Amino acid sequence: MSRRELRDLVRTQLQMLLEEGDLRGAKAILVPVQPADIAEAIEGLPEAMHALAFRLLSKDEAIAVYEYLDYSIQEQLLEELKSQDVRDIVDRMSPDDRARLFDELPAKVVNRLLEQLSPAERTATAQLLGYEADTAGRIMTPELISLKENFTVSQAIERIRRLAKASEMIYYLYVTDAARHLTGIVSLRELVTSQPDQAIGEIMTRDVVFVHTDTDQEEVAKLIQRYDFLAVPVVDREQRLVGIITVDDVIDILQQETTEDIYALGGGVQSGGDNYFQMNLMEVARKRVVWLFVLLITNTVTGTIIKSQEDILAKVVTLTAFIPLLTGTGGNVGAQSSTVVIRGMNTEEIRMLGPLQVIAREAIAGALLGAMLGTVATVWAYFLQGKLEVAIAVGTSLVAISVLASISGSALPFLFRLLRLDPALMSAPFITTAVDVLGVLIYFNLARVILNL
Amino acid sequence: MSRRELRDLVRTQLQMLLEEGDLRGAKAILVPVQPADIAEAIEGLPEAMHALAFRLLSKDEAIAVYEYLDYSIQEQLLEELKSQDVRDIVDRMSPDDRARLFDELPAKVVNRLLEQLSPAERTATAQLLGYEADTAGRIMTPELISLKENFTVSQAIERIRRLAKASEMIYYLYVTDAARHLTGIVSLRELVTSQPDQAIGEIMTRDVVFVHTDTDQEEVAKLIQRYDFLAVPVVDREQRLVGIITVDDVIDILQQETTEDIYALGGGVQSGGDNYFQMNLMEVARKRVVWLFVLLITNTVTGTIIKSQEDILAKVVTLTAFIPLLTGTGGNVGAQSSTVVIRGMNTEEIRMLGPLQVIAREAIAGALLGAMLGTVATVWAYFLQGKLEVAIAVGTSLVAISVLASISGSALPFLFRLLRLDPALMSAPFITTAVDVLGVLIYFNLARVILNL
Repeated sequence: MSRRELRDLVRTQLQMLLEEGDLRGAKAILVPVQPADIAEAIEGLPEAMHALAFRLLSKDEAIAVYEYLDYSIQEQLLEELKSQDVRDIVDRMSPDDRARLFDELPAKVVNRLLEQLSPAERTATAQLLGYEADTAGRIMTPELISLKENFTVSQAIERIRRLAKASEMIYYLYVTDAARHLTGIVSLRELVTSQPDQAIGEIMTRDVVFVHTDTDQEEVAKLIQRYDFLAVPVVDREQRLVGIITVDDVIDILQQETTEDIYALGGGVQSGGDNYFQMNLMEVARKRVVWLFVLLITNTVTGTIIKSQEDILAKVVTLTAFIPLLTGTGGNVGAQSSTVVIRGMNTEEIRMLGPLQVIAREAIAGALLGAMLGTVATVWAYFLQGKLEVAIAVGTSLVAISVLASISGSALPFLFRLLRLDPALMSAPFITTAVDVLGVLIYFNLARVILNL
Repeated sequence: MSRRELRDLVRTQLQMLLEEGDLRGAKAILVPVQPADIAEAIEGLPEAMHALAFRLLSKDEAIAVYEYLDYSIQEQLLEELKSQDVRDIVDRMSPDDRARLFDELPAKVVNRLLEQLSPAERTATAQLLGYEADTAGRIMTPELISLKENFTVSQAIERIRRLAKASEMIYYLYVTDAARHLTGIVSLRELVTSQPDQAIGEIMTRDVVFVHTDTDQEEVAKLIQRYDFLAVPVVDREQRLVGIITVDDVIDILQQETTEDIYALGGGVQSGGDNYFQMNLMEVARKRVVWLFVLLITNTVTGTIIKSQEDILAKVVTLTAFIPLLTGTGGNVGAQSSTVVIRGMNTEEIRMLGPLQVIAREAIAGALLGAMLGTVATVWAYFLQGKLEVAIAVGTSLVAISVLASISGSALPFLFRLLRLDPALMSAPFITTAVDVLGVLIYFNLARVILNL
């Protein structure tokens, strides 16, 4: 049975038992199920059953399941559960998950919840909330284990044993001096394989890779990805250790940042990191309409240019029929170039080539594509309407438009990056406009020359 | 100094010193640099210097740096380095990295290299090479530590101490029975916090999440992401433990799969997982041209429809000017819908909604967008050419086209998934064609009615 089938089965059974009021049976079927799968099953239930199903869980399980739920359902549960239940959950979430949850809640609810935390927990959460969104400070957890250089390996292991429960990550240990400055790192792997009486200062690595609290979360993610770390330490401006960021958070960040890019590339949807499928529809329309208004204007320009060529269109009406082919192909060639360049910037696959090299490569690729497409289009256009001159005008235009589209498709993302604008969001409308307007002009002017108009 | 600046500095210094023949100086500046950064510096050097720079490294460092290099440079180095050096490198790479390298090399080179491995290493690699590409079997590493249920905690820790060097991951330990069937899992965290004389069978988790050797790598990645694991065990058809897959490999897989999707969405570039910026240009053209030929045909259909309306276009020439606006906007609304749906399928953000709910949501969003765009377009069209009837035809068409585009943009990805075709690759041409052809027909027919033609 696949995990998806398992989840569906659990959800169906759970819903049935809850509808029958058989809480005992419902409780029983959840026992062997993993928290992540329980969370999915709860998400699939009708809204009214969420709190009911959640109450079936033991306290420990409830906390594990809660962290896997979507924010919208976390919020809903907070509203519905009794105050004591809520306090238990919030109190025992890890500070970084809690900070992210609070970030989504209305300020009034946040204040009520902060009141319910223990003083130490409140400080940890408030501290995280003080950092800018999308920075290392916001996603880090202060739950780490730090050591001193003069500890022996066995003292260190004893300390880990004592603190393991309260720490998110015990596989990397961080060494600090008296003023909490980060001076080294040692892995649990190194501890386990060292002699018990060796000093931490002897076995630790002094050349630590770290980030600052204001480092952008995307940069943190790339760093962890690049070095294959399980976590990276975060220091403040005075190089004092204040937290760590773990690899599981990084995967989610990479996915979220990629989603934003894909949305931007796929027709200018501005997601801002929210789950599109949980937004209300007015918000959806608002996030999609801006770009469409821009297109309204740029497409009018193309339309106006076509209209300005009425004289030639009236003489050779058949020329109109090839306009969608030329602008459509040009737009697509441009989209191909900008897509690979923008993705290349983000994954750093492009790093071995400079902008000019990339643009030159794309220009040549565009010429190759243009040659193939132009040849086929010439034959195709001749076959469709029987005028050789028109066919040649279509074919030659296509070569020119492919080169033009490849160049603008690869050059504009670099330009926008230089201007500190998001290439994923900005490139498409400008490329489309450039290719449409210039493409149509090239076509009509070539047609004038070739057809002697 | 940012890491990027550091890398650039190292590369510049390194190149200068190598050009001057100062090998000793070159060696010295690399000492404090991390392997990942050295790899980047080497990649930035002129090709002729790669092997020279690589020889500066100590043996241990060379192996660490080698695994970070791009495959193209790994291949080049293999060709250039002396046979003994090569044997050392290949011998000490982890089996999963080695399998991936061999996968890229010509068969002749692979055979020569396999010969040089120790018998145990050869078996491990050959075993990995026997699995299908993109499956768990191919990306797993057999370097794990297994325990038996009757071991005590202290015996287990002793075993870890002994085997740590030869294992990629020592933070999860896997418990097997006499026939190597996977029966449980225990983390180093649990070992460290348990009493030394407890039995592994008492503290281990029996409900292990695992994958099979033929599980698709993307599914493995999603599993690790979903459960926040550091690794997942791989079993064969008889449930015997054969390897593990670690989280660092998963990040790279997620990135590669996303790149393929983005390329497919961005105008149908078929990447097949290769680095686009390292392909030769004929290959680039080949991977991009298929989709362009499809467009050539579909755009001809649109062109033919426009031409078939010559009678009405001759009477009201100004209608032509709004065609790019209508098809352009429709295409973009469709792209927005298909983008969010396809991304939603991949990230499972969509999971709480069924296909019909998603399509209904998109249809309503399309109507909202259409209402906004239609209103503005009517005013805009009237302002541009002064004929109210034409303006109304444009505005009402835009509403209909937005709804149509949203529906086809959200429905077609589900259809292709049902047909087991890649939605990311297939959706765009069909959506564009549907929207263009139907959109133009809607426009002309509405114009006929409104203008009484």
